[in-house]
Order: sequence, then C-alpha cells, then structure tokens
Amino acid sequence: MERGDDVSEERILLDHGSGGLASHRLISEVFFRYMGNEHLYGMDDAACVWTGPLTAVSTDTFTVDPLFFPGGDIGSLAVHGTVNDVAMLGARPRYITCGFLIEEGLPLRDLERIAASMARAAQEADVRVVAGDTKVVTRGAADKLFINTTGLGELLLDTPLSGAGAEEGDAVLVSGNLGDHGLAVFAAREGLSFQTPVRSDSACLNHMVAHLLQQVPEVRVLRDPTRGGLATTLNEIAGQSGRDIFLREADLPVDPEVRESCSFLGLDPLYLANEGKLICVVPRRWADEAQQVLREHEAGVNVACIGEVGGWSRGRVILETGIGGRRLLQMLEGEQLPRIC
Amino acid sequence: MERGDDVSEERILLDHGSGGLASHRLISEVFFRYMGNEHLYGMDDAACVWTGPLTAVSTDTFTVDPLFFPGGDIGSLAVHGTVNDVAMLGARPRYITCGFLIEEGLPLRDLERIAASMARAAQEADVRVVAGDTKVVTRGAADKLFINTTGLGELLLDTPLSGAGAEEGDAVLVSGNLGDHGLAVFAAREGLSFQTPVRSDSACLNHMVAHLLQQVPEVRVLRDPTRGGLATTLNEIAGQSGRDIFLREADLPVDPEVRESCSFLGLDPLYLANEGKLICVVPRRWADEAQQVLREHEAGVNVACIGEVGGWSRGRVILETGIGGRRLLQMLEGEQLPRIC
Repeated sequence: MERGDDVSEERILLDHGSGGLASHRLISEVFFRYMGNEHLYGMDDAACVWTGPLTAVSTDTFTVDPLFFPGGDIGSLAVHGTVNDVAMLGARPRYITCGFLIEEGLPLRDLERIAASMARAAQEADVRVVAGDTKVVTRGAADKLFINTTGLGELLLDTPLSGAGAEEGDAVLVSGNLGDHGLAVFAAREGLSFQTPVRSDSACLNHMVAHLLQQVPEVRVLRDPTRGGLATTLNEIAGQSGRDIFLREADLPVDPEVRESCSFLGLDPLYLANEGKLICVVPRRWADEAQQVLREHEAGVNVACIGEVGGWSRGRVILETGIGGRRLLQMLEGEQLPRIC
Repeated sequence: MERGDDVSEERILLDHGSGGLASHRLISEVFFRYMGNEHLYGMDDAACVWTGPLTAVSTDTFTVDPLFFPGGDIGSLAVHGTVNDVAMLGARPRYITCGFLIEEGLPLRDLERIAASMARAAQEADVRVVAGDTKVVTRGAADKLFINTTGLGELLLDTPLSGAGAEEGDAVLVSGNLGDHGLAVFAAREGLSFQTPVRSDSACLNHMVAHLLQQVPEVRVLRDPTRGGLATTLNEIAGQSGRDIFLREADLPVDPEVRESCSFLGLDPLYLANEGKLICVVPRRWADEAQQVLREHEAGVNVACIGEVGGWSRGRVILETGIGGRRLLQMLEGEQLPRIC
C-alpha cells in the first residue's frame, strides 16, 4: 500500500467531535478548505450576518441512505433542500448553517467529498455557509452521517407566499418530471440497475424562482414536492387553501423509464420525493407566461400545466384519469421509502 | 393494563417521519401542542420573521446520552445551548428552529416530555420556535433522539463580540462553578450516585448577558465553556486574541462535591462541559461592576475573577497552582466523555 492510500483511509474518530484539538483540525482541514469564509474563520460561537427586515427561515435534517446516489449526495441535497424551502416562500436564500452528525469510523475521504459537494451547491445557489457544528457519536449510535441545514433568505415580496394562497380557477403547474429523486435513491440503496440509469433531480431552484417572481406578478403558491411527493404536497396546498385541486392524469410529466420502473417495483411516482421540482399555482391568465419562464431554466424544461383549483371545499385532490374516471389522491399514508432525503 | 397506559406506550414509527398523514398528526398533536405559534401553524416550507439589519446566527446538534439527566434533558439543553451561543455574540436571541432526528421505537411519551421541556426553556429564554423538521430512521440507525437547533438573534452592540477581543491587563471572570453539567450527565449515564446529587447547570444566559451589556460598556469577550470545558474555551480565546491567559488555580470555582467526585473518577472539572456558565473578559476597571451584575442572576451567584490576560504571545493558558508553580493548560486532546451535549 502506498503512503498516499494510508492517508485517504483515515477515519473519523470520536475525538473529532470533542470540541478540542482534533475538532479544530477537522474544521480547518476539511470544512474551511471547502466552505471557508470570513463568517466561519472568526471561530466564534455564532456568526453575524446582514439581513433585511423580513427573513425567511427553514430547517431540515437530511438522512438520505446511501450517502452518494446518481445525481447527487447528502451534501448537495442538504443545500438544495433548504435553499428550495426558503425560496418557496418567495425569498432569496442568502445564508445556511450546517450541523454534521457523524458516526465514528466514517471515512474522512467521504466527508471531504461531501463537504466539497456542499460547497459547490452553495456556490451555485449563491448562499454562504455562515455557521457550523460537528458532533461525532460512537459506532452504531448513528448511521454514517446526518446533516442539518438551516437557511435564511431575504423576502422578495411584500408578504410571504403560502400554501393557503390558491384560488378558484388558478392553474396548477409542475416544473418537470416526477419521481426521479425517489427512484434514483431507492435504486442506489437496493443495488438495482435500469437500462437508462435514473438520476436524482436534486437542484437549487432559487434562481428560477427569482426569475419567475420578477416576470409573473401574481404567483399564488410555490411549493416543492419533496417527501411524500406531488400527491402529498398538493394535499397540503388543498388543505391550507380549503379548495379542491383537480389534476389531469394524462398531463402529469413522468419520464417513461421512471414510469415503467415504478410500475414494475410497485411504487407510485406521484408519492415519490422530488428534490429539484416545484409546484406553482398562478391565475390562469399568467399560466402561459409562467411556463415560459420556467422552461428557460434547466430544472424547468419539462414544465407542464397539470390541473386547476376548484371552489371552497374540505381540500381534496382529485385525479381525472385517462378513461374519464375520477379518483381521490390521498396524502401519503404509511412510509414506503424511509431516508429518501 | 388500563386503556390509558396503552396510549402512553405508543411509540414513534417510521411513518411519523414520512411527511404524510402520520407526520402531520405528530406535528399537530405533539409539537404544536407545546410549541405552537403563528409561524408554525402556517405549515409552510419556511417561516417569515422580523429581523434587524444585523442578525446573529448559531447552530448546534445535541446528542446527549441519556436523554434525561438531573437538571435537564435534551430538549431544554437544545434550547439553552443555542440561545447561549447567540447571546455570546452580544445579541438578544429571538428565534430558534428545531430539527428532530428520531429512532423508530422512541416512546411517544418521551418525545412529549422533551417537547414540553423545550417549550418551557424557550419561554424562559423568550425565544420563539419558528420552524421545525422531523425525521424518523429505522431502529439502530440512530440512538433514540438527536436535536438540532439553530438560533437567530438581534445584535445589541454595534459590532459583535468575538473571542479575539481580549486585551492585555483584562480581567477574566467565570460566572459560576465548573463541571456540573459534564459530571451530572456522566453520572446519569453510568448509573453513579453521589451523596449530594450533582445537577446539570443547564440554563439560558441571555437575560444575564443583556443586563451585563447594559451595565458594563466595555465587555471584551463572552464565551460559554461547553464541550471541552473552561480549559478548551480559554485556549480558544487566547488563540483568537494572540495573548496568554493567566489563571489562579485557587480562584477557580468548583463545588466541593464535584471536585471530590472528579478526583475519584479521574475527570478534570476544567475540561468538563458547562451549559449554564459564561466566561467574561472585561477591562480590569469594570471587573467589580461586572461581577456585581452577574451575581444578581441565579446563574451568576458563584461568579469569580479567575485570572488575567497577558501580552502578545502564541496564546497559551497558564495555570498558577496553589503552591506557586505554573502549568500549561492545553486544549482538550482526546475525548473522555462523548455525547455530553
């Protein structure tokens, strides 16, 4: 074995989470190397950031298994997930914090790869990592690595968007194909391979959102259909707005390969997590303009108008099937795929 | 078995972390019940909060084992730890976010007890829980419960305090007895009992900090000696400031019971975590006033002046022992007590 290999096989020890010397070395040599900026270099208990009068805040813990999957890894996902949640309020994400919870024995190489991936994702999203924390627990007390990110953003609107904003007659758009992330992670976990490999759609959506809000003055709802998929997120919007949402099954964009694999595996792409898609509810008169804006972005090339909002109700989601039938699309009940994000 | 017992034996299932129906029920029935406010009731992906132009931000993941210990639990600790980190910048903590990472099978009763404790701690600290996230992983993929909290605060000063602020001749104060938290958690974990039970000092320090900053115009450094204890935190301050810190061993406040138990167990109270203490560096002329202010608060009744700051150097911490000797107090090397916070 070469001396170089020796180093790359270094593993995380409990000592790296002690707050003492080894923690300081890990922070300097891994986290600062990739994510360093003046907020972190201060090495104080907290960072101080410039904010506007209204700040959007979101937090999320990422537990995805495996850590690496086609199209991303837990690091990029932890940035995208939180950046997108902040953006969905109608905000420009500016800062994130990262809490690493590491199982003793994690290869240092994996942590470095993940830190580098987070740094790239943060740069692409134009957010800065302003505070961090590292904890290490004994073998068996956690599974490899969990990451919490909390995001802060500047509101781009006078009032934040909410799932409660949908109104009768509004068009419901989705920015692209459904289910890619869920299926990609599931396949990576189970060691399945498809003819055409399915990749996660994990991506930051904040630039697309900023563009949309600039061009379309009446966006009613933005929401990313992550855990629980499109069906669950639409149920949330329907419930918050107190209106039914009618979907046209034929218009739901699903990649044929994903559709076929899901059918084979007994998974429903409408309940699979997406990590680079958004649902957008707009007045019908703005639906074309909104689609045109979304289509200009890589994450929006397959945008589709999938349905519309009905009148006051208990907030159901109703799927109009190809053969003219109607079926109630419930919120996810039961967990088919844990640790998908 | 009574029907009532049945309910109290309910346990967390994977489904509670799915983002679907069971998640929504858990959020409504447990988290909203104790921590609900208009930010959370919105049930959107992010919350929108009022902020000043300068916001202090800090994040921390809590992995303490056991979940309950004399003087606190993981819930109160997760609030105190982050509130205190924000306060140490010279800020008034206003908002926190909570990320719960739960092992399948955790008794729901424990989660409720912890949520109630967080709510009490947040109320006492006068901070609001504005965003949350819940993930559930399969048995064995995490140990019971981990909580990430991220705190936001409003800066009370024109520029944030930093560990780099210590100057030659400054007095070094510590607000009370050292090592109580570390020893209390260690004893609870190992099932040790002492003649007088040792309790964690876990407490929010923000009101005391606000009072101090109001009365003492020249506070140079505030820092809470958590993981790694007083010795590690003072090494950070010494390193950041580029100055030696001289401590008088005889003046270090340690409860006699803690001192004796540590001696017996081979632990050093100077390296044990504290969760309700702060180190305060002030110009010598303000030392008496600062002590007087701290002494007015429950967390500061045992305040002591423990040493002073020397001239430019590599930043060492030097302990002047009772018998006139001097010994270098290093940063913690090696982890004696993992999962102490």
